[in-house]
Amino acid sequence: METVGQKSAQKARLAIIAGRGRLPIDIARASQANGDDPFIIGLRGEASDIPAEFDHVEVGLGDAGRIQALLQERKIDKVVLSGGVNRRPEIVELRGWFNLLAFLPRVISALSSGGDDKLLRIVISIIESAGCRVVGAHEVVPDLLAQYGPITKRAPDKSDWTNIKAGCAGANALGALDVGQGAVAVGGRIVALEGAEGTDAMLARVAELRSSGRISAKRRGVLVKLCKPQQDERADLPSIGPDTVTNAHAAGLSGIAVDAGRALVLDRAAVVSEADRLGLFVTGVNRDQPAKND
Amino acid sequence: METVGQKSAQKARLAIIAGRGRLPIDIARASQANGDDPFIIGLRGEASDIPAEFDHVEVGLGDAGRIQALLQERKIDKVVLSGGVNRRPEIVELRGWFNLLAFLPRVISALSSGGDDKLLRIVISIIESAGCRVVGAHEVVPDLLAQYGPITKRAPDKSDWTNIKAGCAGANALGALDVGQGAVAVGGRIVALEGAEGTDAMLARVAELRSSGRISAKRRGVLVKLCKPQQDERADLPSIGPDTVTNAHAAGLSGIAVDAGRALVLDRAAVVSEADRLGLFVTGVNRDQPAKND
Repeated sequence: METVGQKSAQKARLAIIAGRGRLPIDIARASQANGDDPFIIGLRGEASDIPAEFDHVEVGLGDAGRIQALLQERKIDKVVLSGGVNRRPEIVELRGWFNLLAFLPRVISALSSGGDDKLLRIVISIIESAGCRVVGAHEVVPDLLAQYGPITKRAPDKSDWTNIKAGCAGANALGALDVGQGAVAVGGRIVALEGAEGTDAMLARVAELRSSGRISAKRRGVLVKLCKPQQDERADLPSIGPDTVTNAHAAGLSGIAVDAGRALVLDRAAVVSEADRLGLFVTGVNRDQPAKND
Repeated sequence: METVGQKSAQKARLAIIAGRGRLPIDIARASQANGDDPFIIGLRGEASDIPAEFDHVEVGLGDAGRIQALLQERKIDKVVLSGGVNRRPEIVELRGWFNLLAFLPRVISALSSGGDDKLLRIVISIIESAGCRVVGAHEVVPDLLAQYGPITKRAPDKSDWTNIKAGCAGANALGALDVGQGAVAVGGRIVALEGAEGTDAMLARVAELRSSGRISAKRRGVLVKLCKPQQDERADLPSIGPDTVTNAHAAGLSGIAVDAGRALVLDRAAVVSEADRLGLFVTGVNRDQPAKND
């Protein structure tokens, strides 16, 4: 029979497997504020520096054996996968996987030609074969999820809705191609689509197109970020934070529209205060019917 | 009765209305080599400097009245529209148009929310109402048109075909959205889609993603340029030139695939020699069935 102390030591715990960017840390912080004690497994060469306040280790990208051992040692129950992985592991780096032989053909196929979705499904199968559940960040911290409608003082006006519709068409098409999640529309036209460079680099590009006069200074625009239609919601949902607002403003945009119920708003209080200060709107939209709010 | 001299002076002549970039000049040069004496109407603030060897004038972007007068004075018969126009004219700049009132509702609608296609159709209607035919550059200089199959020593291999297929899917989706014509696929994934920044800026972005390690140096890739599915062929077809080859090489790509019969290869001899020198392929593909060459 187990003692209460043993039970407590074995209490199921959350792990965050962290790739590139700030998002995994933001999620860790939000889950901590929610009463969790997240264990962060940072992927070497990808994860940002992990603040010392979090229990964390770093592992090599292909070292699934180590990851599986850590999950078992720390009695991990739920795993959140967060942050992009730019580099695909080379086949030779894949070592120590449980059941590697069973996964190998799919892994090879995904590494040679797959999009992110294909790789993600494999990673999820492998983690689940170690007895953990892979969950979305919004299942751990539900209040990160974007709600429907504006959260700022400003709401989209008629010309903003024209841009939101154009941006949704672009982001939907991108998502169907498993390319990215973001689009910028200005004056009713899509001017930039997000590829491997990410949202901030896309916004910097729009700012450059503005300053070179290739996009009229008179036309405002909108950043739209949508979840890929077929996306496994356990992968990172598209997210925005205070920096996204600052960068959207620098690109001359009038606001940001995100996929209601399928996008994350990180540090919402700061997002709202930054957007209100700069006069931008931030709103959740229905990606299939952006027009119905018109 | 007219004299022979008068007849000759009134011989129908080609005009090129030139927007941004080198393409209008390349077309003028190719048409000159073909025996034409093109008259170039450069759009102020958009057209590059026009070499003195060409008969040319510069006009304001909204000054359709001047353009129509020039077309009649110079006895222009055929007009090629070439080069992008970054800036949309503001309504107040539109002056002196014949039949302006008849076009105004469509112009306003296109300026406020239209893609390039919509504006182009209006410009074509206006020029044709002045008695000229608007033709595609390839009708004036047919040997610019990309042919089916490789024109270089190197031909696409199996992994190149995987990238060509991915790139075609991206470029087709872009075209359907009236956004752009180009996509870059690396390792079977689309990593960049061309928006308002243009092909060279997109290739520079891919080169940056390479040098920052965000795209593996081990994976080669392909630039695909396709005509928009619904494109009026009298608008600029997608084009490549020697610089495109140099920039594709700098982005770590193994080759370029263009829409056979619906794309232009400018300065073909230089394209081939540059590509052969750098070991790249340049090939025309069937955009709907890129795989059939696999």
